[in-house]
Amino acid sequence: MSSDVSNSISNSDSSNSVDYVRIYDTTLRDGEQTPGVTLTPEDKLLIAIQLDKLGVDVIEAGFPIVSQGEKEAVKMIVKQGLNSEISVLARTDKRDIDAAIDCGVRYVHTFIATSDIHLQYKLKISREEAIRKAVDAIEYCKAHGLYVEFSAEDATRSDREYLKQVYKAVVDAGADRIDVPDTVGYATPKYIHSLITELRSTVKVPISIHCHDDFGLAVANSIAAIEAGAECAHVTINGLGERAGNASLEEFVMALHCLYNKRTRINTKLLYETSKLVASLTGIIVQPNKAIVGENAFGHESGIHTHGVLSNPLCYEPISPELVGRKRWLEAGKHAGMHGIAAMLAEYGIRPEQEQLRQIVAKVKELGDKGKQVTDADLIAIASQVMNQQNLVEHVRLMDFVVTTGINVVPTASVRLIIDGKEYIVAETGVGPVDAALKAIQKITDRIASIRLSEFRLEAISGGSDALAEVSVKVEDSNGKISSARATGEDIVVASVQAMINGINKMMMKRTIDRDSNREIQGYTV
Amino acid sequence: MSSDVSNSISNSDSSNSVDYVRIYDTTLRDGEQTPGVTLTPEDKLLIAIQLDKLGVDVIEAGFPIVSQGEKEAVKMIVKQGLNSEISVLARTDKRDIDAAIDCGVRYVHTFIATSDIHLQYKLKISREEAIRKAVDAIEYCKAHGLYVEFSAEDATRSDREYLKQVYKAVVDAGADRIDVPDTVGYATPKYIHSLITELRSTVKVPISIHCHDDFGLAVANSIAAIEAGAECAHVTINGLGERAGNASLEEFVMALHCLYNKRTRINTKLLYETSKLVASLTGIIVQPNKAIVGENAFGHESGIHTHGVLSNPLCYEPISPELVGRKRWLEAGKHAGMHGIAAMLAEYGIRPEQEQLRQIVAKVKELGDKGKQVTDADLIAIASQVMNQQNLVEHVRLMDFVVTTGINVVPTASVRLIIDGKEYIVAETGVGPVDAALKAIQKITDRIASIRLSEFRLEAISGGSDALAEVSVKVEDSNGKISSARATGEDIVVASVQAMINGINKMMMKRTIDRDSNREIQGYTV
Repeated sequence: MSSDVSNSISNSDSSNSVDYVRIYDTTLRDGEQTPGVTLTPEDKLLIAIQLDKLGVDVIEAGFPIVSQGEKEAVKMIVKQGLNSEISVLARTDKRDIDAAIDCGVRYVHTFIATSDIHLQYKLKISREEAIRKAVDAIEYCKAHGLYVEFSAEDATRSDREYLKQVYKAVVDAGADRIDVPDTVGYATPKYIHSLITELRSTVKVPISIHCHDDFGLAVANSIAAIEAGAECAHVTINGLGERAGNASLEEFVMALHCLYNKRTRINTKLLYETSKLVASLTGIIVQPNKAIVGENAFGHESGIHTHGVLSNPLCYEPISPELVGRKRWLEAGKHAGMHGIAAMLAEYGIRPEQEQLRQIVAKVKELGDKGKQVTDADLIAIASQVMNQQNLVEHVRLMDFVVTTGINVVPTASVRLIIDGKEYIVAETGVGPVDAALKAIQKITDRIASIRLSEFRLEAISGGSDALAEVSVKVEDSNGKISSARATGEDIVVASVQAMINGINKMMMKRTIDRDSNREIQGYTV
Repeated sequence: MSSDVSNSISNSDSSNSVDYVRIYDTTLRDGEQTPGVTLTPEDKLLIAIQLDKLGVDVIEAGFPIVSQGEKEAVKMIVKQGLNSEISVLARTDKRDIDAAIDCGVRYVHTFIATSDIHLQYKLKISREEAIRKAVDAIEYCKAHGLYVEFSAEDATRSDREYLKQVYKAVVDAGADRIDVPDTVGYATPKYIHSLITELRSTVKVPISIHCHDDFGLAVANSIAAIEAGAECAHVTINGLGERAGNASLEEFVMALHCLYNKRTRINTKLLYETSKLVASLTGIIVQPNKAIVGENAFGHESGIHTHGVLSNPLCYEPISPELVGRKRWLEAGKHAGMHGIAAMLAEYGIRPEQEQLRQIVAKVKELGDKGKQVTDADLIAIASQVMNQQNLVEHVRLMDFVVTTGINVVPTASVRLIIDGKEYIVAETGVGPVDAALKAIQKITDRIASIRLSEFRLEAISGGSDALAEVSVKVEDSNGKISSARATGEDIVVASVQAMINGINKMMMKRTIDRDSNREIQGYTV
């Protein structure tokens, strides 16, 4: 970030707040409570190892009382001997705390609800009983030599005077830290600021904040707490968690680093790979327009934006994508402009004249107006046509393809390909329609060019049965060279076939360019 | 919202701010600039009609200069004669403004960048030239009788004194409103508050705020502007837009209504259907853990949360789901507790003894520990086994099914079902083989039982093209009742069809129970 830009927004703030913010990750607990998410103990261990690499201070590894598998997962994580501290959740109940002790953790996060609505309807106990239970639990933990963080669940909807009484009592009983959960995401930054300020003058232990995102304010609320002197925040990767989830680790950390001049131990370059790992193991997708880790966070389509980014990325990017382990990308579409399209074509060594470029952009916009996404392949096809050149990239053209499957039907595909002008027709069966189709294509390309499918990946889709599927493939040639390609479409089978054909074409193009030259691809920084 | 809860968090705020907030929706412009999104003119019209129903004050319908199709779309929307005002985007360039005039709009949103980085690298003009261009454009607009809103692009990274000079100059030239864009999402709530406060004392026209979400702060920043006296916010449905997108209309509006005691014209009951329409036409999915409109926003799995919600929904929901056109749902899983599982089984008329319930919950947790999502179908199978009862009869049996797809092939499926002894045969086409197959099934079941697919989810598969696919579905009947089911197999299409049939069977079971009796499902308010 060039200093002239960053200086224009100054957020250096009051003396109350800490410089170093402790990151308490609760992806493996709050995150795993996301409806639809269940992780095996092995999955949980993989995520814990990644969180440790990422540099979180504390990993809340689970809630041992909930199941046998959960206990095993926590034990495995504890045994791993990570740098991050390992904590677990426990109600203010001896059985829960015993389950925690069984797992070998030294750090327990215990909680009881303190709002009247929770006391009256859920717990059916009085305010006094809740304090008694909390104090008993803290004493039990301390008698067992545990480090204890205490949460007053639904703190933000609790009576303020009573809440202070609760926190005072648990600190007197030996709680090492307190946490302030905004359990239903109902607070505002101002409210959190005033609450934390008041609690800081009430108790002398460190304070954590724990925010939910029901109104989209979790990150702003967490920051407001830090500004008021909280020194730790509970966060999750991708903002996973019950309902709308918790504050996103990646948004919170990047905002602290870039906008608030705070430090954490997070190695931000690992944010994207951590997000991908968690999305793939939990099956909870990240929407494209999610800050920091969404697919579009560093993608540009509109002509004005692409032009700006090509002149100086800071025009339309608050931070460099590399800072969070990403790369910038451009896309053609109806908002596209001359600069962006020229840069995209240059990547393929295609350099149209000014007038040709104008025509290419016009055709891209036409396609966009029809509601079509303009892929690289489309763009190259348009350029080839306008420039009256043979299509540069398409060595392999898929002419026809049909596949049939069902119940009591052997999945069967037939394919007609033209490879460098020569026609090939083949049929094949498989365990499903995708398998049959890809095997048919491989049967040809393996013979012609020794290219084989080495990886097939279908991104989780949710939505209707007509939701977009995204298929990515890797193909490999006999020299171990790998090309990756992707295709998206409403038809899973067709998208798979197109991804495969794209991969083969890219591989063949790579080989041609390797053979040809020292041609340099200029002007495009990706 | 019961008053004892809502009163505990008071956000009634300073006298500076307006009571009524004007909602300027820019889904059809910023939102359409989302990479990968291209809408046909017809799509844009559909969305505009929905936004008008939703009650937005202004619809920014597009950016006419970008393409012929864009112009047509805007013309169609203008001709529709909606209640919402229609505006369009134009650079401070006569050609852009002429394109706007051509479309028949009376309201233009014109902009020029004012930050040094944009002036130097993108526009390559001086600060003085930028002011001259802005003033010329405003004068040109006013000479043509247009209502004009002016944006200083990248306002938040512009030199403060220069920025005020720009806004003063355009207001002197006749601009009716000014807008303050945080173009790269780089601002913080405090910064926005101070900027808007200063601008309010600089110019006397109404001020809009336009925030991007690169650090997850767009909603908080928009609210900070309103608190400082801005009277309008530019927002988009689902937070669509370039990169991480713009401030989400749904989050912003619900926060204003529920947390800040502000009014808008938005009919919040239409928020969910509007979100669904936009997601389906743009193809940009909403992640499950998105506030207000994400699938999980009103879903509960954990035992503690389900128990709380069953006692009183306000325990774990900040607002009633019906307020935004949604329904609450529960799911079984390893965090499940006795209360939640009992409530879910009661929905199917299954009432285990206490000891049986304990065993069922244990088995649900076992399945959860294996990393499996526990569907309604799984839950019923477990209960039948524990309670030593026969699994309830299959209402729907799939006898035959075949589907064909390919390139130059319309995906087509035929299905033979037996429903309660009667045979049905039907054929249907779709956008892909899964879509065709599920539509064929729906064509029958919709007629027989008004059951429709409400969610389709395909777990990520990686490995070879023959890897196992896991499909889970939710089906919904006309009363908004939901059943979930799952199927696994190497053939994605067959697994999808089997999951759908399982879901329909469970739903018909639920309905049989409802018809049978007055048995009341207690404690479960869905």
